[in-house]
Amino acid sequence: MQRYFVDQENWYENAIQIIGDDYHHIVNVMRMTKGTKIICNHPSGVGYLAEIETITDQEVRLQIIKKLSHQVEIPVNVTLIQGLAKGDKLDWIVQKATELGVNRVIPLNSQRSIVKWDEKRQKKKIERLEKIAKEAAEQSHRTIQPTIDNTHSLKKLVENEKDFDHKFVAYEETTREISVKDLNHYLERIEPGESVAIVIGPEGGLTKEEVELLYDKGYEPIRLGPRILRTETAPIYFLSALSYILEETK
Amino acid sequence: MQRYFVDQENWYENAIQIIGDDYHHIVNVMRMTKGTKIICNHPSGVGYLAEIETITDQEVRLQIIKKLSHQVEIPVNVTLIQGLAKGDKLDWIVQKATELGVNRVIPLNSQRSIVKWDEKRQKKKIERLEKIAKEAAEQSHRTIQPTIDNTHSLKKLVENEKDFDHKFVAYEETTREISVKDLNHYLERIEPGESVAIVIGPEGGLTKEEVELLYDKGYEPIRLGPRILRTETAPIYFLSALSYILEETK
Repeated sequence: MQRYFVDQENWYENAIQIIGDDYHHIVNVMRMTKGTKIICNHPSGVGYLAEIETITDQEVRLQIIKKLSHQVEIPVNVTLIQGLAKGDKLDWIVQKATELGVNRVIPLNSQRSIVKWDEKRQKKKIERLEKIAKEAAEQSHRTIQPTIDNTHSLKKLVENEKDFDHKFVAYEETTREISVKDLNHYLERIEPGESVAIVIGPEGGLTKEEVELLYDKGYEPIRLGPRILRTETAPIYFLSALSYILEETK
Repeated sequence: MQRYFVDQENWYENAIQIIGDDYHHIVNVMRMTKGTKIICNHPSGVGYLAEIETITDQEVRLQIIKKLSHQVEIPVNVTLIQGLAKGDKLDWIVQKATELGVNRVIPLNSQRSIVKWDEKRQKKKIERLEKIAKEAAEQSHRTIQPTIDNTHSLKKLVENEKDFDHKFVAYEETTREISVKDLNHYLERIEPGESVAIVIGPEGGLTKEEVELLYDKGYEPIRLGPRILRTETAPIYFLSALSYILEETK
């Protein structure tokens, strides 16, 4: 069943109005007609089953049938702080991280990031990433759409951010240090309702200086298995493990 | 440190010979010289630290310094049976699955696979996937290089395959059935040394008929979190969860 995110202002007592891009998608791409059922997500994160009542030149009007209760959101708030990576890797990371339940992505300008975003480029990039997140959230049947921040520097990250309950950094060197604790040691302490942040370096990794700043601010170094993962594989491993422990382990 | 897979025939008592593509990589790309240390992986899966002794027009000759004991291989034998997917998705799946510890990939010709490989195309495709697996294994510092099979049909898979200790199928519909057990219920039973196989459908999913054939042959339906994952995200979730439970949980 098709699923759309509908802005607050388009919700009425028992009805929903769809306009703009999603109107176009319903009418011209999917060629839906009166009586077709879809799922509409309210910005609060709740999904509703709804049926098309009327289609005009401007809007699709739906009747709400019922509220859906199926829990598809990971029970913690997860922020991915990802070093700017080459090519279209960030597009891909945002898509996959959305499928796996991320709530917020912060692109990180780190010392070894080869890519830099100037102000003009940044606006375009963020818009593109937001669109990717919206589509991936719809396809994976999520009820929340992840947000994408403007790029942060590491200083801005640690100084301005209100704190997270659990803060991690995937530091490549630590994957080979035997003394580092199992990932499970950290993940099993996470309780539903808490917030979790993970920093992943760019292709060249974080510098020693950056890692030390993060340690100072309480970020714990974690290993994501004993193999060396690429910058785009590390967040996927982390989010999968988090889903596994919180959603697939009684 | 650079890492290369070296064929059986190029190993001597205390020396290793490198020729061909890797010779070119060492001499012309990396411009290594006498005294440089690299890691050579024996086909048995054991890695050796070695030092370049001589470089001629034909070969690089290395002295073995020591056997390496660091455990980077997941302690089970994992086979990914992946429905043929569109575009370059399989390239990408092989790369990521290799980083995450897979031992063998079987491309599956399933009823809803839009892509079909004819015999000529198959040979080229397999060679390409083998190259991707080799490079990803080297980059992620693995000591075993995953193998890629020719495509199997589902019938061939269930009839000719010698059995696996644990057999799973990621069936999309089951992700919404409340009655399906947690993934942890299945993964926590896996013991080191055992073999594990997972079937992932193509973009359109497996047909009911295919799923029932797998059920008949003892494949257990599993869910990979409550969200709907794309065909390329599902194997990554599974392998990450497997690594987490076997390598990151005491």
